[in-house]
Amino acid sequence: MNNRYIVIVGCGRLGSHLANKLSKCGNSVVIIDRDESNFGKLSPEFSGFRIEGDATQIDVLQSAKLGQADILIATAHEDNTNMMIAQVAKKVFGVTKVIARVFDPKHEEVLLKLDIEVICPTAAAAEMFLTAANRQS
Amino acid sequence: MNNRYIVIVGCGRLGSHLANKLSKCGNSVVIIDRDESNFGKLSPEFSGFRIEGDATQIDVLQSAKLGQADILIATAHEDNTNMMIAQVAKKVFGVTKVIARVFDPKHEEVLLKLDIEVICPTAAAAEMFLTAANRQS
Repeated sequence: MNNRYIVIVGCGRLGSHLANKLSKCGNSVVIIDRDESNFGKLSPEFSGFRIEGDATQIDVLQSAKLGQADILIATAHEDNTNMMIAQVAKKVFGVTKVIARVFDPKHEEVLLKLDIEVICPTAAAAEMFLTAANRQS
Repeated sequence: MNNRYIVIVGCGRLGSHLANKLSKCGNSVVIIDRDESNFGKLSPEFSGFRIEGDATQIDVLQSAKLGQADILIATAHEDNTNMMIAQVAKKVFGVTKVIARVFDPKHEEVLLKLDIEVICPTAAAAEMFLTAANRQS
């Protein structure tokens, strides 16, 4: 599972962390961000490609060779951006596995219907808080 | 476990969700936010108290009767705010169970040493992404 071609959108805290991890264990990773300075979060060992550009533009996704990707990971800061890119990856580029971060749990349902996997940190954090609150100290 | 006195700082998406849930199952909840409009996120069934104020001010925490709280939950948007409030709750008010959200995993270690429980949505989301990426579709 470590020789896949993975395109990551967004080089924030989450995107850069995933890029470093997935690159380190042998995957080919391309990471896209609008702001070049965000690439500073990548570790020196990151062996993938960086693309400075707006991933809501089809030509930027084409330059990332998204059509050849095994996995698309969307970690931009706006839910709408991630939802848009995830749908384009699935429907236009035919990427098999598409995983998107959304902050608003309401957006989850829409994406699941489109066979897009969804990670919702808000819902995950809420569950963790409730578990911690109910645990006897 | 449903008759506790719980003070929540921050009425954003996470804070309001927790306030609604914890209030609904019978706890006494006080929620503090600097911006009154955020209280609009609370459900009509929320039966706790709202305090408009800056929770980094000791008198605001006093007005929330933090000294009597069983649990303090810090969900402000800045890590520094949550770390500060969590420490004050533990050391000044002697709250037994203090749970704080921090976005930067580096902040986790500092708080754990102070017996403060930490929820890091970034780390949780990263784990979830890696699990999803490695799962056979």
